Amino acid sequence: MSLGRTDFEALDRTDPLRPFRDRFVLPEGLIYLDGNSLGALPKDTLARLRQVAEIEWGQGLVRSWTGHGWIDLQLRIGAKIGWLIGARPGETVVADSTSVNLFKLLGTALKLRPERRVILSEPENFPTDLYIAEGLAGLIGGYTLRLAEPDELDAALGPDIAVVMLTHVNYRTGRMHDMNAVTRRVQEAGALMLWDLCHSAGAVPVDLTAADADFAVGCGYKYLNGGPGAPSFLHIAERWQSLVTPPLAGWLGHAAPFAFEPGYRPAEGIRRAVTGTPPILSLAALEIGVDLLLEAPMPELRAKSLRQFDLFARLVEQELAPWDFTIVTPRDHAHRGSQICLAHEQGWPIMQALIRRNVIGDFREPDILRFGFTPLYQGYAEIWDAVAVLKEIMTARSWDLPDHHARARVT
Amino acid sequence: MSLGRTDFEALDRTDPLRPFRDRFVLPEGLIYLDGNSLGALPKDTLARLRQVAEIEWGQGLVRSWTGHGWIDLQLRIGAKIGWLIGARPGETVVADSTSVNLFKLLGTALKLRPERRVILSEPENFPTDLYIAEGLAGLIGGYTLRLAEPDELDAALGPDIAVVMLTHVNYRTGRMHDMNAVTRRVQEAGALMLWDLCHSAGAVPVDLTAADADFAVGCGYKYLNGGPGAPSFLHIAERWQSLVTPPLAGWLGHAAPFAFEPGYRPAEGIRRAVTGTPPILSLAALEIGVDLLLEAPMPELRAKSLRQFDLFARLVEQELAPWDFTIVTPRDHAHRGSQICLAHEQGWPIMQALIRRNVIGDFREPDILRFGFTPLYQGYAEIWDAVAVLKEIMTARSWDLPDHHARARVT
Repeated sequence: MSLGRTDFEALDRTDPLRPFRDRFVLPEGLIYLDGNSLGALPKDTLARLRQVAEIEWGQGLVRSWTGHGWIDLQLRIGAKIGWLIGARPGETVVADSTSVNLFKLLGTALKLRPERRVILSEPENFPTDLYIAEGLAGLIGGYTLRLAEPDELDAALGPDIAVVMLTHVNYRTGRMHDMNAVTRRVQEAGALMLWDLCHSAGAVPVDLTAADADFAVGCGYKYLNGGPGAPSFLHIAERWQSLVTPPLAGWLGHAAPFAFEPGYRPAEGIRRAVTGTPPILSLAALEIGVDLLLEAPMPELRAKSLRQFDLFARLVEQELAPWDFTIVTPRDHAHRGSQICLAHEQGWPIMQALIRRNVIGDFREPDILRFGFTPLYQGYAEIWDAVAVLKEIMTARSWDLPDHHARARVT
Repeated sequence: MSLGRTDFEALDRTDPLRPFRDRFVLPEGLIYLDGNSLGALPKDTLARLRQVAEIEWGQGLVRSWTGHGWIDLQLRIGAKIGWLIGARPGETVVADSTSVNLFKLLGTALKLRPERRVILSEPENFPTDLYIAEGLAGLIGGYTLRLAEPDELDAALGPDIAVVMLTHVNYRTGRMHDMNAVTRRVQEAGALMLWDLCHSAGAVPVDLTAADADFAVGCGYKYLNGGPGAPSFLHIAERWQSLVTPPLAGWLGHAAPFAFEPGYRPAEGIRRAVTGTPPILSLAALEIGVDLLLEAPMPELRAKSLRQFDLFARLVEQELAPWDFTIVTPRDHAHRGSQICLAHEQGWPIMQALIRRNVIGDFREPDILRFGFTPLYQGYAEIWDAVAVLKEIMTARSWDLPDHHARARVT
């Protein structure tokens, strides 16, 4: 039976998560399918930012490091994110950017496996993961970053692999690894497992404890709705925390930062993974996004995200059959995250035309149109509308304008 | 002739920088002498934060990376800070924390002097500088952090020194190095010179070009008034920029970050020193602080800061003679920054008593009372009042309460 807009309207009326949509600022007339790049602004964030600036900074000044708990903010938000990703208490902290945290975790992993000299990843991993690993290997010397396709991973797990670094949900295709199975095989081969959760945290169920993962990292500005460039989080399994001095040994990770000792003594537990003084304004915004997400049950978020994907996929088949779109993301629920990716040889100009019509997805090289579903605020009817606009663009060939073919730098 | 409060009131009336005080939020009844730890809140920052959250994030969403220039914000603010510290155009960028930037610059320096295996610093350097150097040396292996007292620096400049890392104005004592002379001697010995400008930028005249420094780093939350944990800046002399791949090779330092290439190709120029996605809210606040500072002529700022120090020192002698305070900061203008440090064996409880009386300085181990002068908003009369309160505390021995002796962690 063919789907119509009324089916989507009906789903909006019965969506148990619908009230969350009103907790966000969402521009009038915009269909936003890019929360997997930058999450929307929670309304509460505005009040919190005003409070932290006017009261905590403006009135409290330096006293707010203790008086308003800034000094523990990274641990406090980390504990909340830890809950979202199934970490044990004391294993997660917020600090720096994802890139910097990857460096810390890889550096730690290499120290834990000194006789092994290879970091293993996959060519389709997000580039910064690969760049950071390459940079670390180049800095230390004697180490290599090796890449293997997902189906060659098992064969690549030789005795020289110190750590395997994979992104749980692929940024370009939306494909999701089986975290438990991969972690087990990696550890059976004597290597350590580092998961990048940038496209997972807040979007799909994650249980680092069940997977028994060694390390994880992720960003705060996608499904956590923490704001542009929100600080990142990192996770270190409790069993490794006391064994290694952090490669980035900053003063706030010291056991007694305000004793100003000349020698480095790492703090107990996950606090040692903190580096320098953190950006409090951006941290405060991140906490609001995380708090909001903690109000919603993850099974409901996941169920809605899967349904939105399935509906979008059905609409692609029903409405866009004449135009050669290929759904790149696996259809199987167990192997996908919260985005749908369509390949089309004219992907770039088509996405530019969509954005001009206020349907915001994004494009990823070489030919991917990427649409994210952020179930906390995503509506159903707007998915119908997005595909309807795409159909209009294809029918009218309105993507086929010369200026749509001139590629500028986009995010 | 003895000084009275009316002398200080007269100086306030004729202070050419006095109008800047009204550009800041300063709590009623508080005497703030800790802008060298956390600078005060510029009033314009509140409006800017609202704008970046409500309009740029809330309405622009992911489009603001280009539409509101977020992608170039680190370079734009870096260029403004570069002007403050006498850098050449294209040598300064904002990124990460001071700790992380120290790591990048030290890693770069070691690659430029591969045959030399020692990082030289001084025991009195700010601890995070030493921790980061120690951590880097431990990560790479085969490198050492060596410490020499300032008067032994020349003798320590042997052929094994790759890089010398010093803080221009010492955080604890306020003592200032002769940047030009030290840089010249270091470079004559074949080493590279890295200056930490955390207590210099915006507080004292700095001319990195005249000094011909190789590297510099500094923080945004002290005299730049960029907000708690504001991102840091780093400087790399143009001559070194293209020679080294950054040790922290993040995707935003890539030549084409949105091409998502699997291999790292560094961007041209200082952009390669950028790492991951930066915290935009905190960056936006930093820019307002820097803009405000750029309105004030540095010679006037310096003249006022020196005068405030000299007056404070005279008051210590005039009012506090019975109580054994020692002025630790050099009296000579050429060898001090913008803070005065008093040693007293009861420094800790005395500072706690001052803070309870709304005079905010801070304490640094083992016995230092530290008072900073941020000439952009510091008044003269409040300096008189601060010393008057200190005198009352000493006269009444009101610092001598048991709970003032219980040291908690402070910032």
